[in-house]
Amino acid sequence: MNALLVLLAVAAGPTATDLTRSLVDEVGPRPSGSEADARAIDWAIRQMKAAGLQRVHPEPFASPRWQRGEEWAEIVSPVPQRLAIAALGPSVGTPPGGAEGEVVEVASLQALEQLDPAAVKGRIVFLNVPMQRTRGFEGYHAVAPLRRNGPAAAARKGAVAFLIRSLTASSARLPHAGSFRVDPGVPGIPSAALAVPDAELLHRAIARGVPVRVRLHLGCRVLPEGRSANVVGEIPGGGAAGEIVLLGAHLDSWDLGQGALDDAAGVAMVLVAARSISAPRRTVRVVLFNNEEAGLGGARAYAEQHRAELDRHVLALEMDHGTSPVFYQSVLAAPGPAADAAIRELGAALKPFGLPEIIRGKDHGADLGPLRAAGVPVAMLAQDSSTYFDAHHSADDTMDRVEAASLEQVTAVVTAFARAAANGKGDLGRIPPELREDR
Amino acid sequence: MNALLVLLAVAAGPTATDLTRSLVDEVGPRPSGSEADARAIDWAIRQMKAAGLQRVHPEPFASPRWQRGEEWAEIVSPVPQRLAIAALGPSVGTPPGGAEGEVVEVASLQALEQLDPAAVKGRIVFLNVPMQRTRGFEGYHAVAPLRRNGPAAAARKGAVAFLIRSLTASSARLPHAGSFRVDPGVPGIPSAALAVPDAELLHRAIARGVPVRVRLHLGCRVLPEGRSANVVGEIPGGGAAGEIVLLGAHLDSWDLGQGALDDAAGVAMVLVAARSISAPRRTVRVVLFNNEEAGLGGARAYAEQHRAELDRHVLALEMDHGTSPVFYQSVLAAPGPAADAAIRELGAALKPFGLPEIIRGKDHGADLGPLRAAGVPVAMLAQDSSTYFDAHHSADDTMDRVEAASLEQVTAVVTAFARAAANGKGDLGRIPPELREDR
Repeated sequence: MNALLVLLAVAAGPTATDLTRSLVDEVGPRPSGSEADARAIDWAIRQMKAAGLQRVHPEPFASPRWQRGEEWAEIVSPVPQRLAIAALGPSVGTPPGGAEGEVVEVASLQALEQLDPAAVKGRIVFLNVPMQRTRGFEGYHAVAPLRRNGPAAAARKGAVAFLIRSLTASSARLPHAGSFRVDPGVPGIPSAALAVPDAELLHRAIARGVPVRVRLHLGCRVLPEGRSANVVGEIPGGGAAGEIVLLGAHLDSWDLGQGALDDAAGVAMVLVAARSISAPRRTVRVVLFNNEEAGLGGARAYAEQHRAELDRHVLALEMDHGTSPVFYQSVLAAPGPAADAAIRELGAALKPFGLPEIIRGKDHGADLGPLRAAGVPVAMLAQDSSTYFDAHHSADDTMDRVEAASLEQVTAVVTAFARAAANGKGDLGRIPPELREDR
Repeated sequence: MNALLVLLAVAAGPTATDLTRSLVDEVGPRPSGSEADARAIDWAIRQMKAAGLQRVHPEPFASPRWQRGEEWAEIVSPVPQRLAIAALGPSVGTPPGGAEGEVVEVASLQALEQLDPAAVKGRIVFLNVPMQRTRGFEGYHAVAPLRRNGPAAAARKGAVAFLIRSLTASSARLPHAGSFRVDPGVPGIPSAALAVPDAELLHRAIARGVPVRVRLHLGCRVLPEGRSANVVGEIPGGGAAGEIVLLGAHLDSWDLGQGALDDAAGVAMVLVAARSISAPRRTVRVVLFNNEEAGLGGARAYAEQHRAELDRHVLALEMDHGTSPVFYQSVLAAPGPAADAAIRELGAALKPFGLPEIIRGKDHGADLGPLRAAGVPVAMLAQDSSTYFDAHHSADDTMDRVEAASLEQVTAVVTAFARAAANGKGDLGRIPPELREDR
């Protein structure tokens, strides 16, 4: 085999598409702390062993649990219409008989925060902001704070429920779930996302100038805390076995779809990449995080449980962006020429893929936040997100959305990148303190 | 105004997009015989009067009624997975506790009919045939008999339930409803459509060779017969007032979506077209059929109630194919040179639109079947259906799927065609008996 073939080789075994399908079909949706999550953890242990990883083990932690129930909403007046909704997590359910009120529409979080509580009390807040379709995560990042902070903001104003336009640029009639921050200082209110066509319908109804009343039923409930686990395995290093290159993805998913893009595909990529690396200089550690979707509890647990060895983590990469092609790569590391050289060393490994030069940038997978905060250099192989949010967190996150050829190509990129990081000698140093704050 | 402008003019008033939105927003989904159907009938009467039509009136008839209830399905073993389903109409509901059984997958109606009843008894039949995406209705027509005849075929074999892959080429996770023929000789079984990704998931589960059990709950029920009505109005003719040009569309819709494409858009087109025709030679009669989706009861009622004057119907056109552009036009009429000349006369009116010549062909809207059977010439302005079935009969049939510019252009074509038919002198004769059988 010539050097290029060695560089590109992916060891025989199931493809990334096979592994994605296996997690989707044989486990299915797997919210953290659920029965399916336990099966996902077993699946991950089996797959890591099959991929030749060593020291494979779960790392348990306490997980919040939340369960969706029956849910529906309707405009009750002036014209009855069913609305497609999905509860956000961890929303409380509605009282017996449901929640009903006149709808107050707002076009921004600031507008909500400026409302007179008298205009909100007893009503339903409807936060309606279209998401832009962007190649990177810009479109999503612009609206994600609305979901994160909207429910508590509406509750503080005295609303009886909170509705948000789904964070997607797709007009398919499927609502998109997601999590929000609970404000311990105010009782939670039933909070749900509307599918985009339903947000548009509600918007048009309100625009006609007649008061619009909505009724909704959310059967969801917050369950007692349970158990989940990250799953960890390694390809032990040789000459620099004490240095750790972390390859991450997340095992848990939202409940509406099957978590094919988010994040079975990422799990598959890092399993194939690890299997394809033999006798690396540094230790390659695969971490399949849990509870990414509902609080990043796995990310915090990993950082706490491995606090003592974080200074030996030389680079961390998480894949959690679907199956579309990589369009840029970035590394957040120490400033200066030593890290520059280490970045060039990594970049050389990606030459065959025709990608742009690795830039210095702040993006990274959500589970790497606590590592970044500890100074661990983080990398991003950024995938085109133009269509990623069409399915994200919705029932449409199925095997049918997987772009198989692209998934395999991205897996080859991850493999080459991870192999270069594992065999490299470059020193990315530590992220300087002023760049460690989480996104 | 020059001749071309007269030819193309559409009288001032709400656009077809406005009228589509009005029916969607102010009435919503409107199954025949439902409370919303009554509101749709009122809406139609109001809109016909506003469009300047005369002799506007409802023509009541007895309508079957069927109501969807709560519905869900899941693979219970070997791996639990939720399945997205929608009951077909007029399915019976499941018994208390739901229906459960091992799934028998078949790839054609013939394969189902050849199954040994012993292999079906107590099981769930799953008819899984992908639909092709075609420009015309060919893709749909190839699979429509599966839904029409599948439930009864499965019931005759002793199945406890019937599942069919949705009749769509879209892989969005939304099931597509539709109707089927009840066999009075065999008790009905719960019958539902699976969204395409769920059909694929179920297919993969079965392909792994382990028995797959599914449980489903359908809360739907057949209600006592109710009332519905076609809504009829006219632009009275002048010199040939006794000759009737019928412009049709259907008022009712499926319940899952809002019937924007199917068929608020068609309703809007014919209302705008009629409004734009002043002092025609022949009488232009707009018929908004009802119960198209659930048995074509309105079509039969119209033909029966107008039996005595069907020989004065010189041409009938129904618009019921969404909002995409027209790509061919056909007329089914008498053979021979007189009808040829009449067809050329109609074709001349469409010159400005750059459409191909009108051909002789058998296509027509579903509500025109009884008129065709009586010999009334029928026309088709065939719209591109490449994406029509993505939303058809699903929750996704919303205002967001309306291509507004195209809708207005098709409306202009319908207007020009109707005006030519109403002012023409050509004689299309009668459809010869051998061509009168319904599709």
